[in-house]
Amino acid sequence: MATEPAIKYRLIKTEKHTGARLGEIITPHGTFPTPMFMPVGTLASVKSIAPEELKEMGAGIILSNTYHLWLRPGEDLVEEAGGLHKFMNWDQGILTDSGGFQVFSLSDMRNITEEGVHFKNHLNGSPMFLSPEKAIQIQNKLGPDIMMSFDECPPFDESFDYVKKSIERTSRWAERGLKTHANPDRQGLFGIIQGAGYKELRKQSAKDLVSMDFPGYSIGGLSVGEPKHLMNEVLEYTTPLIPSHKPRYLMGVGSPDSLIDGVIRGVDMFDCVLPTRIARNGTCMTSKGRVVIKNAQYARDFGPIDDKCDCYTCRNYSRAYVRHLIKADETFGLRLTSYHNLYFLLNLMKNVRQAIMDDNLLEFREAFFEEYGFNKPNARNF
Amino acid sequence: MATEPAIKYRLIKTEKHTGARLGEIITPHGTFPTPMFMPVGTLASVKSIAPEELKEMGAGIILSNTYHLWLRPGEDLVEEAGGLHKFMNWDQGILTDSGGFQVFSLSDMRNITEEGVHFKNHLNGSPMFLSPEKAIQIQNKLGPDIMMSFDECPPFDESFDYVKKSIERTSRWAERGLKTHANPDRQGLFGIIQGAGYKELRKQSAKDLVSMDFPGYSIGGLSVGEPKHLMNEVLEYTTPLIPSHKPRYLMGVGSPDSLIDGVIRGVDMFDCVLPTRIARNGTCMTSKGRVVIKNAQYARDFGPIDDKCDCYTCRNYSRAYVRHLIKADETFGLRLTSYHNLYFLLNLMKNVRQAIMDDNLLEFREAFFEEYGFNKPNARNF
Ligand SMILES: [Zn+2]
Ligand SMILES: [Zn+2]
Repeated sequence: MATEPAIKYRLIKTEKHTGARLGEIITPHGTFPTPMFMPVGTLASVKSIAPEELKEMGAGIILSNTYHLWLRPGEDLVEEAGGLHKFMNWDQGILTDSGGFQVFSLSDMRNITEEGVHFKNHLNGSPMFLSPEKAIQIQNKLGPDIMMSFDECPPFDESFDYVKKSIERTSRWAERGLKTHANPDRQGLFGIIQGAGYKELRKQSAKDLVSMDFPGYSIGGLSVGEPKHLMNEVLEYTTPLIPSHKPRYLMGVGSPDSLIDGVIRGVDMFDCVLPTRIARNGTCMTSKGRVVIKNAQYARDFGPIDDKCDCYTCRNYSRAYVRHLIKADETFGLRLTSYHNLYFLLNLMKNVRQAIMDDNLLEFREAFFEEYGFNKPNARNF
Repeated sequence: MATEPAIKYRLIKTEKHTGARLGEIITPHGTFPTPMFMPVGTLASVKSIAPEELKEMGAGIILSNTYHLWLRPGEDLVEEAGGLHKFMNWDQGILTDSGGFQVFSLSDMRNITEEGVHFKNHLNGSPMFLSPEKAIQIQNKLGPDIMMSFDECPPFDESFDYVKKSIERTSRWAERGLKTHANPDRQGLFGIIQGAGYKELRKQSAKDLVSMDFPGYSIGGLSVGEPKHLMNEVLEYTTPLIPSHKPRYLMGVGSPDSLIDGVIRGVDMFDCVLPTRIARNGTCMTSKGRVVIKNAQYARDFGPIDDKCDCYTCRNYSRAYVRHLIKADETFGLRLTSYHNLYFLLNLMKNVRQAIMDDNLLEFREAFFEEYGFNKPNARNF
């Protein structure tokens, strides 16, 4: 490719005792520091949060979903609006997924062929078809800075034979997508490494995709229900397969422990709906672990959600007030909990970047895990 | 009463051709200009809007509901939190109603006695009792700047005999409330003038209450389904019954035409859930009338909700985007429409104050009505 790639990665330093990388990713809509957590705005809106608030929190890039936008309001309308950035009033980085994950997870009627996937629209049941070409054409119209190749994400416990066939098809799909991609100078297309828990297949998948010289690589097929130690194991042998001058994106991960453990293994980017999804029923991540704000114990608790947090919510509102709002189904309540949870993860990543700078990420991990409660025998996932 | 009243009204000028008054109301939490529209925060939150945003719009005072806060989270909890201002992070004026209206409108099982009203909790059906004393005690604990006397709000078409008995009881209730009121130096208690469409009874009610020297007066029992010309007629003969150095508050009115017509007849304060309630299904007030954003005609309309509006929503988002969010049930959509509608009414009142200053309120009314569509034969209420 003669043109300058749309997405570039700059490695600033590697942490002394781990594989953690401090860097930055340069996009057509600004540069953001890595490791970074990306808030998810499924339908071109990070639920209940304004773009100005995301900037305040330090989110330099957000994610949106190709499948959902394809259905509503449609990629042609978004293109006509001037692209996703203009449509949703967000002038920094945007990444879209390929739609593949939703096609496989939301539809129970689907049929995978070499050509693509036949499935049913989850809103009205009508038949639809998504191919590697179509996934790229939609993303070209949506106009994000970073696009994803169309891939199959097989279950973690799928057989070796099935996964081998699947990654080989995913590689062929990646090549077809690459050929379809209309704007490599304005949008960077990532390849997605699959292979479930099979080291040999992860190697094969990475080798195929690296040979196609994508400007960045995603690691897919993780955080799909497998135990955390297996996810870490896969990361451990997969990230070194990706050239060090390219960004590495671990898809669908947002629990604080997994973010830190992913960074330690060399991951640069993460996304997850977790912080906004749990916020909607009033569950908050805090420095001392999860706070389920609906619990009776917080009814007369006039302290902040997290006394170590300096976010808008924690500076201005009490647990008692947030609890009252959530219990009364007041929308401002979920705005406050969503704000706090996103801030918590973005601030965690800021602290992680500082720990890489200071070469004390393992100590940081230990102290964070201890205070959060991850070291307890029956620790929950977040 | 020896103490200085908590609420004072300062008349700046009367418009040359109407009864409209430009003034200001001084409260323990700041001074706001009148005529003013007060956004409603039923459960200690103006739905989906942050306090900072209300200030941005120029809302110097908001309303909250005694009945709803009594049930959830309870007045004792709010008092423990340091009062409503601190609980909800709002440091400007707050007005609470008496709870009477909700007791009469939300409960179908109620029994009115001289002592008070027996009724059923609308959330769980349990029996409850609200008296003039209890309504004041709750409001003393909630701690708003302006409180309301407990009143009965009879239907507009109720018989003369019933309404006469009702206003006499409401006057006795007002007196009992006045005696109960614990903080007249920190909270101003208003009397509520009732009397349906009977001029003689409005006079009697006003005379009773004025003799008790409340720091302000509400006009109740209007905007309950009667035709607009009857509401205006009642206002015409009722506002002159209130001493000119006291503020006049018309309860439950929020359609643009009624606000202007109320101001012309000497009203200083208004409140209504209308702007936030209609915003939730995507109905917007604009300079050119109502816009129902879900309508198909706006699907590819990339202009603002109102091209004459300079609010946050109109400066940054298109009708097409807002429509997409509302149709997809995205909470950010109702945040954007709520913001616009509240801004629209607060901005309307700002323009009305300027027209009073300029002595051209009738010309302003005519131009506004013409553009909004209120002069059309089948004009809707808003
Ligand atoms: Zn916080
Ligand atoms: Zn506007």
